[in-house]
This record gives sequence, C-alpha cells and structure tokens, in this order.
Amino acid sequence: MRLLVINANTSSGVTELCAAAARRAATPGTEIVPLTCAFGPTIIESRVENAIAAHAVLDQVAQHRERADAILLAVSYDTALAAARDLAGCPVVGITQASFATAALIGSRIGLVTFGTPWLYRELADAYGATARLAGIEVIPASARDAYSDPDRVRQIAAQTAGRLVTQAEADVVILCGAAFAGMAQAIQPDVPVPLIDGVTCGTRLCEVLAAMHLPSRAVATGPGGIGLSPALTGALYGH
Amino acid sequence: MRLLVINANTSSGVTELCAAAARRAATPGTEIVPLTCAFGPTIIESRVENAIAAHAVLDQVAQHRERADAILLAVSYDTALAAARDLAGCPVVGITQASFATAALIGSRIGLVTFGTPWLYRELADAYGATARLAGIEVIPASARDAYSDPDRVRQIAAQTAGRLVTQAEADVVILCGAAFAGMAQAIQPDVPVPLIDGVTCGTRLCEVLAAMHLPSRAVATGPGGIGLSPALTGALYGH
Amino acid sequence: MRLLVINANTSSGVTELCAAAARRAATPGTEIVPLTCAFGPTIIESRVENAIAAHAVLDQVAQHRERADAILLAVSYDTALAAARDLAGCPVVGITQASFATAALIGSRIGLVTFGTPWLYRELADAYGATARLAGIEVIPASARDAYSDPDRVRQIAAQTAGRLVTQAEADVVILCGAAFAGMAQAIQPDVPVPLIDGVTCGTRLCEVLAAMHLPSRAVATGPGGIGLSPALTGALYGH
Amino acid sequence: MRLLVINANTSSGVTELCAAAARRAATPGTEIVPLTCAFGPTIIESRVENAIAAHAVLDQVAQHRERADAILLAVSYDTALAAARDLAGCPVVGITQASFATAALIGSRIGLVTFGTPWLYRELADAYGATARLAGIEVIPASARDAYSDPDRVRQIAAQTAGRLVTQAEADVVILCGAAFAGMAQAIQPDVPVPLIDGVTCGTRLCEVLAAMHLPSRAVATGPGGIGLSPALTGALYGH
Amino acid sequence: MRLLVINANTSSGVTELCAAAARRAATPGTEIVPLTCAFGPTIIESRVENAIAAHAVLDQVAQHRERADAILLAVSYDTALAAARDLAGCPVVGITQASFATAALIGSRIGLVTFGTPWLYRELADAYGATARLAGIEVIPASARDAYSDPDRVRQIAAQTAGRLVTQAEADVVILCGAAFAGMAQAIQPDVPVPLIDGVTCGTRLCEVLAAMHLPSRAVATGPGGIGLSPALTGALYGH
Amino acid sequence: MRLLVINANTSSGVTELCAAAARRAATPGTEIVPLTCAFGPTIIESRVENAIAAHAVLDQVAQHRERADAILLAVSYDTALAAARDLAGCPVVGITQASFATAALIGSRIGLVTFGTPWLYRELADAYGATARLAGIEVIPASARDAYSDPDRVRQIAAQTAGRLVTQAEADVVILCGAAFAGMAQAIQPDVPVPLIDGVTCGTRLCEVLAAMHLPSRAVATGPGGIGLSPALTGALYGH
Repeated sequence: MRLLVINANTSSGVTELCAAAARRAATPGTEIVPLTCAFGPTIIESRVENAIAAHAVLDQVAQHRERADAILLAVSYDTALAAARDLAGCPVVGITQASFATAALIGSRIGLVTFGTPWLYRELADAYGATARLAGIEVIPASARDAYSDPDRVRQIAAQTAGRLVTQAEADVVILCGAAFAGMAQAIQPDVPVPLIDGVTCGTRLCEVLAAMHLPSRAVATGPGGIGLSPALTGALYGH
Repeated sequence: MRLLVINANTSSGVTELCAAAARRAATPGTEIVPLTCAFGPTIIESRVENAIAAHAVLDQVAQHRERADAILLAVSYDTALAAARDLAGCPVVGITQASFATAALIGSRIGLVTFGTPWLYRELADAYGATARLAGIEVIPASARDAYSDPDRVRQIAAQTAGRLVTQAEADVVILCGAAFAGMAQAIQPDVPVPLIDGVTCGTRLCEVLAAMHLPSRAVATGPGGIGLSPALTGALYGH
Repeated sequence: MRLLVINANTSSGVTELCAAAARRAATPGTEIVPLTCAFGPTIIESRVENAIAAHAVLDQVAQHRERADAILLAVSYDTALAAARDLAGCPVVGITQASFATAALIGSRIGLVTFGTPWLYRELADAYGATARLAGIEVIPASARDAYSDPDRVRQIAAQTAGRLVTQAEADVVILCGAAFAGMAQAIQPDVPVPLIDGVTCGTRLCEVLAAMHLPSRAVATGPGGIGLSPALTGALYGH
Repeated sequence: MRLLVINANTSSGVTELCAAAARRAATPGTEIVPLTCAFGPTIIESRVENAIAAHAVLDQVAQHRERADAILLAVSYDTALAAARDLAGCPVVGITQASFATAALIGSRIGLVTFGTPWLYRELADAYGATARLAGIEVIPASARDAYSDPDRVRQIAAQTAGRLVTQAEADVVILCGAAFAGMAQAIQPDVPVPLIDGVTCGTRLCEVLAAMHLPSRAVATGPGGIGLSPALTGALYGH
Repeated sequence: MRLLVINANTSSGVTELCAAAARRAATPGTEIVPLTCAFGPTIIESRVENAIAAHAVLDQVAQHRERADAILLAVSYDTALAAARDLAGCPVVGITQASFATAALIGSRIGLVTFGTPWLYRELADAYGATARLAGIEVIPASARDAYSDPDRVRQIAAQTAGRLVTQAEADVVILCGAAFAGMAQAIQPDVPVPLIDGVTCGTRLCEVLAAMHLPSRAVATGPGGIGLSPALTGALYGH
Repeated sequence: MRLLVINANTSSGVTELCAAAARRAATPGTEIVPLTCAFGPTIIESRVENAIAAHAVLDQVAQHRERADAILLAVSYDTALAAARDLAGCPVVGITQASFATAALIGSRIGLVTFGTPWLYRELADAYGATARLAGIEVIPASARDAYSDPDRVRQIAAQTAGRLVTQAEADVVILCGAAFAGMAQAIQPDVPVPLIDGVTCGTRLCEVLAAMHLPSRAVATGPGGIGLSPALTGALYGH
C-alpha cells in the first residue's frame, strides 16, 4: 500500500523526521510518501497558522489522493482532519487522534507530554472523547526545535516528565505528543514504567489497518463552485 | 464605529443581504463595511469548503483589520472565528455564537430553524456550551437560495417550523440560523409565540457592545514565518 | 429607554455604586432607574438570604415593570433571574450571566476574580454552559466592603490576581465578579495583559441590545391564586 | 422523632394528603407535623411562584425548626431545598430528590410520571446527577386536582403511562412525581411490572434514616442583617 | 427483617467488623446475617480480584437470597452490585453507593477519605452521578489493615484528612470510604466540622428503607444455560 | 504472532465463527488460537451471566497468557476487559471497544446495529468516550442464533437497518455489534452507503498493531492471596 505522510507545515525537515519514523513503524509492504505543504506557515504555533495550514493540507490531499491508499496527517494539531476525510477517498488518520485511540486500548488514565499549547490538546481530547481518561498534560521546558538540536536532553526531560505523570497523576499510559517526538518513544521506553507511545508510530499502523479494510467512501455534497482554488482542489470539489 | 461584515463565501449576493440586515440592526453611528472573500467556495456546503474559506476569511481580516472597530463573520458556520479573534486586534463575533449567546439571555430552551447541516449546529452548540439548552433543531424543506427567489414561502415554512419547536419541543426562544435568514426574524415574529432572533441582528449589536468597551488585544505568539501567503497575512503574522 | 437596575439587597449604597457604573456604561438615550429591595438581607452572603432576596427582587419587578424597557439584576448571584424573566414582560439580564456571555465572545479560557463564594460561581458557570471555558476562580483576600473603604488596595489585589489567572491558568479573558467591582475593570485594565470585564458594564450594554430588539413576551401560566403577597405581585400573577 | 412535613403551597388540602401518606410510610416512633405555608401561591405552577414559595418555606423552617428532628419538603419542586438545609439545624429532604435517590438504589433506567412541568424535572434530574439514568419523562393528561376529584381515573392513566415507560423507554423503576401522587404508588404497583415509588414515601423514610444518624449541622455565615423579615427568620439568621 | 451483609472478600475478619457496625446501625427488628465469600481473594486490591469476587458475591446471593429481605454488599468497590440486583429478588445496596446517595441528601460538596485506589472511587462517583458534587478524594497514609492493628492512629489521620477536605476543598460532607472504616465515623465526628458518614451505617439504614417498601422484582431474561456453576447459581439462573 | 481469541461464553460454535472471521482479517504471520471458557453461561444474555463470565475469561487469560502475543475478547460485552489487561502481560482488545475506536477514525456519527441489550452498548459507548458520536442504536428483529440458522435473512435485515441509521440518524459509519456478526460486514457492505465494520475484524487488526509495538506491561498490585481459585489464576495473581 502507499501511505502519504503529509506535514501540515512547510518545513521539510519535520516531514523527513516523520517519514523516517513512519518507515520504521510500517510493515514491509507499505510505501511511505512524504509530502510537505506548498504554502503556509513554516511551523504552526497559533490558531491562525493552523487554520491557514488546513487549506494547504487539503490542497495536498486533492493533489495526491489518487495515488493514496491512506493518509497520515503528521502534525500534532490533526490539522484539517475531518475535512480531509471528506475529500480523500481513502482513510485519513491524524497523529494525535491515533495516539488517543491507541492509548485508550492500552490503559485507562492517559498522560500526555508535549512541547506546548496544552489548551489545544485539551480541546482535541474533548473532541475525541478522551477527556474522562486524561490524567494530565505536562509541557516540557524544551521546544520542538530542541528535539533536533539536542535530542539527548529532550529525551531525558521527556522521560522524567512521563515518570511524573505516572507517580503524581496515576497515568497508566503516556503519549509523547508532537511531530518532533516521532520515533522517540521506543528509545525512552526503558526509563518509563508504563507504555509510552507516539503519534507517528500509532498513526502509521492504524492507517495500515484501515486501508486493509477496503471501506467505501461516503459521497459528500459541496456547493456550486469556487474561485481562486488550485486546479487540484477545484477538480476534487467541483469535478472540472 | 466601523463594522466589517465579512462573508466567508465568494458570492457577493449574500454579502449584500447580510450588510443590509446589519445596517437595519445597527445604531446610527455604526458604518457597515461589507466584505466578500477573494477566493474560496461560492457557497460553503461541506467541511472541506468551510476549511478553505477559513483561510479566505483570515486573509480578509488581515487586509482590513486596521480600519476595523469590530468584525462580524456573516456565515452561519462561524468560519475561522477563534483564529480571527487572535488576528484581528478588535472584537470578532460570529453570527451563530451571537445567536446562541443572545438566546441564552432570553430563554432556557432554544429551538433552531435552519436550511441544513444540523450536525454542524450541534457541534457549534456544544462548542458554545449551549447543548443543555438546545430544545431541538429543525431543517426546513427549502434551500438558502429559496430565501432570495421565493422569500414568502420560506417565511411561511420558517414560521410553521418555529411554532412546532415551541409546541413539541418546549422551545421558549427560537433562532433562525443561516445567513440567508438575515433580517427575516422581525417579519415572521408576529406568527411565532416566543421570541425569534437571527444571527446578523444579534451579532451586529454585540459587535457594537464589544467595540464600545475598548478592550485590549491579547498578544499571540506565532511560528518563525511562512510561504505563499498574501502580503497582508504575512505582515499580520510575521511583521514584514 | 428606561433601564431598571435592581439591587437584590436592601443596602442602597451598593445600588448607587451599580447605578453609577451603569450610567457610565450606558449609551446616551438610556435612563438608569436604581431600585433597592424593600425587604430582605442587607447583603446576601448565604443561600438562605439569596432565596429570600429572590422574593424581594420579584416584588420590585412586579411593582416597576410597567415603566421598564429592560431590567438589570445588579447582584452577582443573578438572584431570581429565570423567574424575573417570566414576570417582567421585558428583557432581564443578570450581571454574572452577562459577564460569562460577554467573556465567551472575547476568549476561550475565562478567569474569574471574586470576593468569595466560589462554589456559587461554579454553579452559575455550569448553569450558563461556561464550565468548559472556566480556566479558574480566584478569591481575593478582601471583602466587598473593602471595595468602598479601601478601593486602591482592592484594585491592586484584583490586578495581581487577574494576572495570576493569566500566567498560571492560561486565562485569556478575566471577569471581575461581584457588584462591588462595578466600574473597576476599566481602571485596572492597564495592569492586566488580557481583556478584563465586569458585570454591570456588560449587563447594561446587553440590556440595551435586547431592549432594542422589541421581542414579545412569552405567556406564563400560573396557579389559581395566592395569599400574603404584595398587591403588585398579586396583580402581576393573578390579575387582580 | 418529630418530622415536619412542609407544604410549600398555601393550600392545606395537599398538606393533609401528604401528611397522611407520610404517616402511612413512617415507622411507629415518628410523629408527623404537617405545616402549610403562611403566605405565597395556593398551588405553585410557575418559576415565579416557586421563587416566592421558597421564602415562605424558609419562614416555616425558621419558625418550627427548634422542635424538628427532620424536615420533609412535600413539594415536587423541592422548593428552597439547599437553603433550608443551611437553616434548619436538622436533616431536610425534598420529595423529588428522595425519589431520584431511591430510584437509583433500585434500578438503572428511571422513568418519571408527572402532571406537568417536565422541564423542571429535567433540571432537577440534572442537579441531582440523575440525567444519565433518566429513561424518560411522561406527562399524563390529568391535573393534580384530578387526583382528588377523580383518583380512580388518575390511577388508571398513571399505571398505563408507567407501563409505557417500561416497554418503550426500557425503564426499570418508575417514579410518580408530584405531591398529589402521595400514597398512590402502592395502589398502582400491581399493574406495573417494575418497582413504582413516590416521593412522600421515600422522603419520609430517608428523613428517618438521616435523623437517626444525629449528624452535626454545619455553621453557615450570613450577612450583617436584614429588614422586613419575620421575627423567626430574623432570629434564625441574625440571632436577635 | 433479615439483612444479609455480604463481604466480597474471603477474610471473615472484615465480615465481622462490618456485621458489628451494621448491628449498631440497624433498628431493633433487623437481624444481621454476615456472609463471607466461599472463594476468591482474601482482600480485593486489584481489578482482577474484584472481577473474580463478583462471581463469588453472586454465588452467595444465589445461595442465601431466599431468606433475605435485603442485602448489603459490604465492600467499598460495590462489587457486582447491578448484577446482584438482577439476581436477588430483594433490595441490594452497596456501601459506596449508599455513602454517595446519603451524602447528596446532606450536602453539595462531597469529600472522600480512603485507604487507596482513588481511581476506582472516581469511576464509581461517575457511575452514580456524583462527579459534579465530588469536592475531593484524599488517600490516607495507612492501610485497611492498620484500622484493626492501630485504630487510634487511623482515626487521628482520618479526622485530620477530613478536616483538610473541608478547609481546602470546601467539602460540606465527608465520606469515610472503605469497609475497614465501618463504625468509625461516629467516633471521629466530634473532631470534624461537617457531617461525617460511612457506608455500612448508611447502607444498613437504606436497606431497611427499601425492604419496608415491599417492591416487586423485575424479571430478568437469561441465556439458555451454563456449565460449571454452583447448584445455587444454576438454580437461580436456569431454574433447575 | 500468536493471537488468542477468547469467547466469554461456553458455546464453542461462536468461538469457531469468531476464529474464522479473525483468520480472514489477520495478516499472514498471525496464528489464531480459539479459546472457549471452561465454565459459565452458554450464551451471556444478562448482567449476572456477564459477571460470572468475567471470572471465566480471566481464568482463560491466566492459563494461556504465557503463549500469547495479544488477546482478542470475542464477546460484544467486552467482558472483563480492563481486568484482563491488568492480568495478561500482553495487549488485550475487546471487540466492541475495537469497533468504537475504529469507527471514530472513520466518521463522526456512529450508528450501531445489534441483536439486543441496547442499554449495554450505551453504557459501553459512555465508558469509551463515544457517546457524543453515537448517532443511534437499532435492535434488529432477529436473534444471534438466527445468524447461524438463517444468515441470509439476518444480512438483509442488517443492511436495511444500517441504511435507516444513515438516512434517519445521519450516521456516517455503522458498526455491526455482536460476535454473531463476525465476518458479515464485508458481505453487506455493497448494500450500505457508508463504511460498515464489525468488531472481530477491527479487533484482530488492532491486536496486531499493539503486539507489534512491544510495549511493556504495567505491574499491578494485588492482595495477599485467595482461595478456591484455579491454579492458573492463583499463580498469575499470587505467584505460587
């Protein structure tokens, strides 16, 4: 199968990081196709940038959907997730929903370690029905950029923070939340007493599960037309 | 004060309709500035189109915010509302949140009459904390376009539907939900036994209330930059 | 328009304070009519006193409703609010519901600063659908009476407390909750990094908005009669 | 023990009916003291009347609390319940909370049969944490007054309605909700396939349980004073 | 009446403790019949043990139900409660549901003191509709076993912890949660400023209330048969 | 990997049906090991039988866990799920949680078709955080046994019922809920306009995903011992 890994940002560094983690997580028959958005914010750090990136994500979906068996949105905000599902014609999974869904299959009190924007993950937990299981969210004193420049330090802080969620908030499963954590869970796991998961790994596997089911797409009604859209979006939405 | 009325669609007909209703609702000192999006769907009828229109709305906000005292989003999906608030530097109100907020000041069981997409209004009611007060949503057998071509019939159906929400669902206030209902509540009110409100009227007044408070804007952090954005958005987000 | 400002207590000092703040908030054509309850507690500080004051508020409404275009309940408990709406024949707004409704139009994480009874504001937040947006409630180490005797100190403490709600609880809008805060938000605003609002200002404006809509009253059924009620209440309820 | 049965209305007929049912439900050592409010509505049928009756109930509590071991509020609105608890110095139980509490000890899907005001029972169910267990509310086509003038017909309708809640809404316990149903559950039970309960019976027994525990009262702070209150209320609140 | 007190564990020491407390709480005509499970964990401390104990509890119910007027489950997990109700043919009350139900009749902010497994009491509070009233849960630094070996120390710690729930979490009623607390509330009450209750006392009294109502049992459908069950369970479920 | 498929009933017919469906869903390297409970109900149709079956399931887990890479509970009640996770030392998935988790990755309004016990699926939806997404539950007029004796008729009814959930309840994904539906979704899919899924297929795949993650087990504390348990359970819990 062919799995598109779409980074909602325009910085190809994160795309490569996520694609590499997806390749490690994927089963042999899965081809990973990394895609970086053609326009929009370098790194989403605000609601405004996230809303703009949604358009950019949908543009990527429209352009590449015909060669996709499934799509992984490699952005912790799950940017444009519901809309992408209506457009793609194949399964679409966001890494944060993937994390919450997987965590709920493992434990009953979910801890979350992140680089920032805790308000957003509370909103997503609520949208995904995970609020009752959310034991706590901890923001680490490091940025996503530190994950590239000083990965050892980030790993150490993340492990300590996960441990604190276990001892203080009774978490029995912990999510490393953020695309920059891609592939880091496995390395830190020995230092954390409960299962530790990350979104790219979970999402890659869930994409494979959904693609293998060969489910039909639901037809979605659209308005009569639009202007100023890319040819791909125009074609996907309005058929011309 | 100057109130921008932004239509999230690219069809200026709806813009004019909403602007006219806003002018009727506004107090004398308020100047209504109608704005239609420069790109995006003619009429939003799907999640995909709504996500694209969010970008277009933010582009309008970025372009015109410097001459705005407040902004009314004249689209029943409240497209990009939270993001627009972070960008505008002045109060931003969406017509559906305005309707729910006003209805909650009037009654305790809210009925909602709409042209379609009831799922979306349930999502918005939930986001706005109105679910516990939502007595019922009724979709009328008419389209937003009928509101222009055959307004008498739409008025009659809307009045009957509102009446049914009162008798069968115990509604004690009813919202006409949809930009195409702009200005229609007052005409139908004599046929409905409880208060009937519409979003453009409520929203215009609430914008005036908020603008008069002269509240400061909260500073919002953004990422390091972006590509392919309009000069207005680039300037507003990244200062160059 | 004529706006009754009803203080649910029997202490006219608070009435005057609220009326003055309402006059500052009102637009030119609005006449403020301050009313103090004729019987009941001097200052409501318990559930028992609040329940008694509800009767006293309704008595004021019954006596003065014929000359009212709208009524503001100038008491942070929103005493008798739903009942007053059924009796008044005109819009009725409580200052705490007004604060929550306005705050939800401004931000998504509401902080609340108050003189006491945090349990009550949690109950009201729940009743008004604001619980999901409530970032935190902070009780300041000062009484409502200090607001008159030592306003500078109260202002300083309130500003510091509001700031703490921003930095520690991620509040993006803060309510000064309590009639004794009437008019204080504007003075403190320069020291607080997010919008700061108070109930009398919000409520006065919202009363104007609702009155301008000229909405009909819903007929409310009552029982067959009563004894020992004031002539005004007897007339309003039983028509004789 | 001495159990005050306070009717929140001023119609002594209902008081007698409830007192008789309470006597049948009580264990031998319990003395039932029926009390009718000295002022307020004959029969509460609106929020306004309920708010006024709250004052009248508190007045009865203040007057008679010294000779009470427990108090049953014999009114289905549980008028002034929380406030009465703060004032009484002994356990206070409302008949509708008693019904919900008892029903939750018996089954997991609660049906409710009532003479009217379903909105109010939904509010109370929510306040008492019973919403998730509420299978349905059915209003019977009869008034509380019919329960006296034509009890056979009311019994028959109530039994049929309870049966419908079982077959159609999967109720596994049914509450007859309304003071006028006092004592009726036992007579109808043979015609209903699941447990059927009424508030006066449940409430009388729960009062006995709480009184036997001899729990202390919590001290409640009040404001500095009040005017126009009965000597009993003034004494109870302000100690003079 | 005859009240079975079933300990879900196989350690008869706890059974005796609970039976003694039940005898103190019961009214004169009530005979307490203590029952200890015939198989299963000595003391339940995990979900696995709780699930196994559920079978053992149902076995006791099947064996002894014919001579029962009511059944008290004397285990703070309310093990097998809903299933036992379907099997018993008489009222069944669990001590933790009894505590929450009683607490809600007394106050509006419930504190809970326990020996451990706070996650479980949160789950039960949620299942019983008490979450909105739960002011806080405090785990004391002592084990259930300490309650026998060093009761004075446990009493002192419990009193201090209850006091902290009052001052810091605004609790207005406190539950001592755990079978090992049986009978301890009365001794500690003088040191705690709000009502203090325990499950065995509450549950014994509520069993008496329900038994006195002589309510019918609901018929419950079962599958066609089973293997390896005790004769009592086989008879109770499948009639042979 | 080796996947245990545990039927919580003692009827091996259902076990074989589920094992066959699991084999069709599994990827090549997965060995399916069907297990039927050694004691308990033939077919669970009540809460009592479900509670007994929980013990039987845990006994199977204890006996076979050492040769398991993952465990699928092939019973729509997800009997003993949370406890089995604490005992197994490998991932454990229940077919109904698997269905809800998968459905939430596909759509936003979930329809559910089942043979009976709708109350139970509502409870599970709530426990799994899916209530807000539950569009509706429909019970078909056929029994699980009909699925074997007259599968064509059951397929036809299920397809019609699923279609009704789409048109009337706006479902955008439908779950066939019940072990007897194992493998039926694929056959019916062509007649249903939205994705149709069943628990055994989803659960088998999710087990593979979790097993491939090689996550550690959380240590779970137990009590000091037990009596009358199988050697396997005694060993698993108490290590002897």
